[in-house]
Amino acid sequence: MFNNVTIVGVGLISGSFALALKQNGLAKNIIGVSRTQTSLQTALQLGIIDEALPLEEAVKKSNLIYVAIPVDATLTIMQQIMDMLSPNQIVVDAGSTKYALCNLLQKHPNRKQFVATHPMWGTEYSGPMAAIKNAFVGSTCVICEKNESDTNTLQTIENVYKTLGMHLVYMDAQSHDTHAAYVSHISHITSFALANTVLEKEKQENAIFELAAGGFASTVRLAKSSPAMWTPIFLQNKQNILEVLNEHISQLQKFKTALENNDAQQLQTLMQHANTIGRILK
Amino acid sequence: MFNNVTIVGVGLISGSFALALKQNGLAKNIIGVSRTQTSLQTALQLGIIDEALPLEEAVKKSNLIYVAIPVDATLTIMQQIMDMLSPNQIVVDAGSTKYALCNLLQKHPNRKQFVATHPMWGTEYSGPMAAIKNAFVGSTCVICEKNESDTNTLQTIENVYKTLGMHLVYMDAQSHDTHAAYVSHISHITSFALANTVLEKEKQENAIFELAAGGFASTVRLAKSSPAMWTPIFLQNKQNILEVLNEHISQLQKFKTALENNDAQQLQTLMQHANTIGRILK
Repeated sequence: MFNNVTIVGVGLISGSFALALKQNGLAKNIIGVSRTQTSLQTALQLGIIDEALPLEEAVKKSNLIYVAIPVDATLTIMQQIMDMLSPNQIVVDAGSTKYALCNLLQKHPNRKQFVATHPMWGTEYSGPMAAIKNAFVGSTCVICEKNESDTNTLQTIENVYKTLGMHLVYMDAQSHDTHAAYVSHISHITSFALANTVLEKEKQENAIFELAAGGFASTVRLAKSSPAMWTPIFLQNKQNILEVLNEHISQLQKFKTALENNDAQQLQTLMQHANTIGRILK
Repeated sequence: MFNNVTIVGVGLISGSFALALKQNGLAKNIIGVSRTQTSLQTALQLGIIDEALPLEEAVKKSNLIYVAIPVDATLTIMQQIMDMLSPNQIVVDAGSTKYALCNLLQKHPNRKQFVATHPMWGTEYSGPMAAIKNAFVGSTCVICEKNESDTNTLQTIENVYKTLGMHLVYMDAQSHDTHAAYVSHISHITSFALANTVLEKEKQENAIFELAAGGFASTVRLAKSSPAMWTPIFLQNKQNILEVLNEHISQLQKFKTALENNDAQQLQTLMQHANTIGRILK
């Protein structure tokens, strides 16, 4: 049980994390830090946070500081937080990229007080209104560079995530970013691009609205995700994402060529191969 | 209430349709027709059909014949069925493409007994085991070339779909195929291609399995769809699909270029535009 927990950012992930801590009796008092006053007001009204404070005051009185803001802003703010830590305070981030941050903090004198994590859970919504109870349950949490964290600190955070119902996976930061490009970041790009494709070509919006069935909704769902959150993720994970994106474009071109050639056999083959994804998905 | 209904194909759509007819008291006896004996056995065991008969016998005793098989096989079998109709029998198809079929049957002497429909509902599963109760509810059904059907026949089928909880939309066959390419067919291609992308590049399957979160699952869900069903859809709707596919590849290339140029502003703009799909989706 933490007496005081600061969440930096009061959005989908941090807000859901705060609710989960309270729900599981892991935190007494939750402090919200945000540049956006209206978000703090909303988070207070929703009972996600107990008080709102400026960063320095908040950090000073907290046992745990949980950072979940866009990954470019994370780099700046984490350095500030790490510099002001006293012993026994713990800092955790929840960013979708891990290499840039781990690399930046590698030599920091307080590195052992930091645990780099990526809870693989989310929805296409953002902001404090998007925070929900019972988030994280049954999802995977990646912990990166675990040997760089203090053993007890690591164990404390492992226990928090386990209590929230998460399954833990360990990786170095570079592997995390590669894997995340394949199973998360590319899905967002294809969804955004698919939404733009349909918006571009289909001028009779009413027809989209009328005909859009479940399949369409599920492939473009992520297109509603926050640009502010995803722009820095794509830029920080640029090399991995470009690699997957090139492969994806070439896979689409295989369909295109098969179609142009009326090659039923090749279309079948491509789809039969794709079907094997079923054994990988739950 | 139909005394005898034949479903040609005993799979996801036809099976769910049969269950819905029974559930709503619209059919007394359901006859299954299929080339696959095991599917007929399964459909009998699951109570989807009451009996299995060869096509000719089945059609002869049916008030309504409902065809839901791959769209290439549909062209052949529909011609056979149309040739053997006696007055007052009704034929309906449920295919995902409409132009080739409507064009083929345009001059058929029994054209008025046929209603061309596309219930915009489905899942990624196929076969009689995939048939479920309460399918179709709340989804849209497209009816094509309605003026080519007899007025009473049309009304009968409209009432069936309405009783099943569907919302009706009317289109000419060509418009249907164009719209379906945008809001359904392209989603399937991107899903298949995304699955192949990840399977191709990611050799550590365990990592995919561990990290694949909800976003990935929703964008590749359709990759589990039946190649036998989708190959002829893609080929019949080739021109429309190639057009959308080209646009989609060019949208992906916009992301690629923005990323290569570290162009945060352009990434934001692309995603903000994609966000507007939210107002179109329910």
